[in-house]
Amino acid sequence: MLQLANLIGPDLRAALDDDPEGLREVLVDMHPEELAEIIEDLGDMESVELIRLMGPDLAADVLQRLPPDRQVDVMESLEADEAAELLSEMDPDDRVDVVQELTDDHAELVLAALQRAEPEAAEEIRELVHYPPESAGGLMTTDVISLPPETKVWQAIERVREIAHAEDPETIYYIYVCAYGGKLMGVVSLREMILGDPGQTLAELMNPKVVRVEATDDQEVVADTIARYDLPAIPVVDEHERLLGLVTVDDVVDVVIEEATEDAQKMGGVVPLEDSYFATSFLEFVWKRGAVLVVLFMGQLLTATVMEANSALLAQTMTLVIFVPLILSSGGNTGSQSAALVIRAMAVGEIEPSEWYKVLVHEVAMGLCLGLILGSMGFVRGYIAHGEEEALHLGVAVGLSTLCVVSLGATLGSVLPLATRRIGLDPAVSSNPLIASLSDVLGLTIYFAVAGFVLHVVF
Amino acid sequence: MLQLANLIGPDLRAALDDDPEGLREVLVDMHPEELAEIIEDLGDMESVELIRLMGPDLAADVLQRLPPDRQVDVMESLEADEAAELLSEMDPDDRVDVVQELTDDHAELVLAALQRAEPEAAEEIRELVHYPPESAGGLMTTDVISLPPETKVWQAIERVREIAHAEDPETIYYIYVCAYGGKLMGVVSLREMILGDPGQTLAELMNPKVVRVEATDDQEVVADTIARYDLPAIPVVDEHERLLGLVTVDDVVDVVIEEATEDAQKMGGVVPLEDSYFATSFLEFVWKRGAVLVVLFMGQLLTATVMEANSALLAQTMTLVIFVPLILSSGGNTGSQSAALVIRAMAVGEIEPSEWYKVLVHEVAMGLCLGLILGSMGFVRGYIAHGEEEALHLGVAVGLSTLCVVSLGATLGSVLPLATRRIGLDPAVSSNPLIASLSDVLGLTIYFAVAGFVLHVVF
Repeated sequence: MLQLANLIGPDLRAALDDDPEGLREVLVDMHPEELAEIIEDLGDMESVELIRLMGPDLAADVLQRLPPDRQVDVMESLEADEAAELLSEMDPDDRVDVVQELTDDHAELVLAALQRAEPEAAEEIRELVHYPPESAGGLMTTDVISLPPETKVWQAIERVREIAHAEDPETIYYIYVCAYGGKLMGVVSLREMILGDPGQTLAELMNPKVVRVEATDDQEVVADTIARYDLPAIPVVDEHERLLGLVTVDDVVDVVIEEATEDAQKMGGVVPLEDSYFATSFLEFVWKRGAVLVVLFMGQLLTATVMEANSALLAQTMTLVIFVPLILSSGGNTGSQSAALVIRAMAVGEIEPSEWYKVLVHEVAMGLCLGLILGSMGFVRGYIAHGEEEALHLGVAVGLSTLCVVSLGATLGSVLPLATRRIGLDPAVSSNPLIASLSDVLGLTIYFAVAGFVLHVVF
Repeated sequence: MLQLANLIGPDLRAALDDDPEGLREVLVDMHPEELAEIIEDLGDMESVELIRLMGPDLAADVLQRLPPDRQVDVMESLEADEAAELLSEMDPDDRVDVVQELTDDHAELVLAALQRAEPEAAEEIRELVHYPPESAGGLMTTDVISLPPETKVWQAIERVREIAHAEDPETIYYIYVCAYGGKLMGVVSLREMILGDPGQTLAELMNPKVVRVEATDDQEVVADTIARYDLPAIPVVDEHERLLGLVTVDDVVDVVIEEATEDAQKMGGVVPLEDSYFATSFLEFVWKRGAVLVVLFMGQLLTATVMEANSALLAQTMTLVIFVPLILSSGGNTGSQSAALVIRAMAVGEIEPSEWYKVLVHEVAMGLCLGLILGSMGFVRGYIAHGEEEALHLGVAVGLSTLCVVSLGATLGSVLPLATRRIGLDPAVSSNPLIASLSDVLGLTIYFAVAGFVLHVVF
């Protein structure tokens, strides 16, 4: 008897050659997710042999769980007819995702084969392909059950049964009530129908206040709406309120995870990746990280200019220079904290756009408070650095500068995300590196101003 | 006729006093989520009056959508009997969450009242309270339908109907098949039952390979499992595989959002907040940010020591010092990028623990490549800084140091998250500030070593 552990390495090769039927039995007994994870690590040839062995139904389920780059590999290794058969077994939303990953020529080839086998599915893909993958339209499935309002509950249950047998819709638990022409009027759950009076019409039973999204809405809007109202599924309509499809909450989990990853990458100062870490090419990494670093580096060149401009002061009091990295990093660290807090609070809706002044006041106050703590530590370190009669001067200069630069960091860390949202950009582009770099340039100017003032004017 | 816009300010007060019945009609017509958002901004007195007005059923739905601190406010302003009535209308999982937020004394008072009104619900809370809120047990609802394996499909549908009428379970779409004693044997969806042969037994129809979690599993495991297998719901079992409850995917959306927020805060260098941004006290912020900053500041004091130790070199070549902030920030920025990429890729499972060496090789190579780009820019800036015969020396010193420090940043940004996971900590604690600070101290050492070598040995 073949075991799961045999599905790797030379044993797999042997099983494919010697006992394909035994292997098939093992495959159909496994969870599609596990099969997908095995295929992910196989070469193209073995992948395709396994896919063929498991039959189109299971293969379709496995294929839609593969990462996009592997989907393309598999699709390209199959004959167009085989690829079309796999597609026809998939859910409409996953089908479109796969086709969108293919090259245009290859997509046309597969679609032509699908057109011959199942013209409706091919048409549907051609329609759905128009929606950007990250929109409600790109996310939705069109396999949705809609019934007219005058349908009786018992008729509706019968229809659901028929449709479920014939078409295998994504969910049969939500039935959308649509007027002639497709305008969305309400929603009824299968649960309400089963518990309700069979003689009632759907119009009587339905909930007419359906939370909905438009097909052109961004996937983030879909995720936020589903999360906000705790919905199991949300209908997607066009600009005339006509039902186009639905998005289920399990698709939204993936969206939420994807958006969190994008935000984390932006905050880390990387242009968000299209693919997974290992599927992204070295060159793409160089571009998506290098572009940001080069821009920041050019900004940071200002620090050298500020230092040059103050070289007279530096030469006079060499001890000043030894505190530059300490003071600058305190500002950057505080800014990084403020940015993380403010950006996430905005992302989850805890901070409304109208509350920007509350946030600003809070962060400035916080900066002063944290600045006092770090400033006192800076004072002590500055004081003992010299050990001569200038000790007090230097202590005050370092302490006061730390206070100012930490306050500056907190202010920048909140103002920048607030401002980027104000001008319509994603607050997460106010990345940590950007805030740290700005805080460095301004912090250095502050340091020299404060230190020059304390050392030469006050004393 | 009262309008939604009246539900704020003095108009609300007037409506509460003069036309409570008219107000009630407006309230019951609104979505609970919208009511929750209105109540969130009201004072305790108005909140409670509104809650009383809308009746226990709607009020329970609204209450479970409020943020934890406001839930406590409302519960504390209600009589124990009223609070118990609200609880009895809530889903078991939300019920426990509310009780866990209350002070022990107050919780006992409310539970005693609930014990009199609905002893079963009170017992259930006392059981569920033992699970930490962030575990599968803390997340699950116990309102789950389980039936014995010998049940016929037609009997099962009847039972589901009865149970749904009597108990209002969280979902009726998944029926768990349990042996005598409660051991989970399989799952049947309502869809399969409706489409199946009414005379079949559940044992014949069920899928015996149920993906499940244990009650003590962390909520992150629950979320990952649901997301991995694209499940609409997942059963929770005890250590003897007995069914305890289930977690639905809509609860998991909240978990995913919560975990992303925690990760973002950790990466920003903040100890994760318990409550929302505005619900967190100033003092808690000072503690959760200050503690991290103070520790980092103490580490950063080393930069001053390194500078002091190299003051001879600095005094000799003053121009060296003007590049310190530029070079250090390049290292910090690169580290921030690597950390964001690696931490997120680990969080979503793109990087397996066994692949640490691949990541390390990738990041070091990336660091060298990015270092070459920034290093060449550094060379140019160093070259033109002097304009004398030492120009080449300084250019090489700055360029080479930038190359080294950028490589260092990329290495630290990947090694630290990998290492924190290795020792069992959340990789996200390798925060940007920590990486920047470490990179500063080591980078400064490298800079002086490289600069000293180039300026005094090579030339």
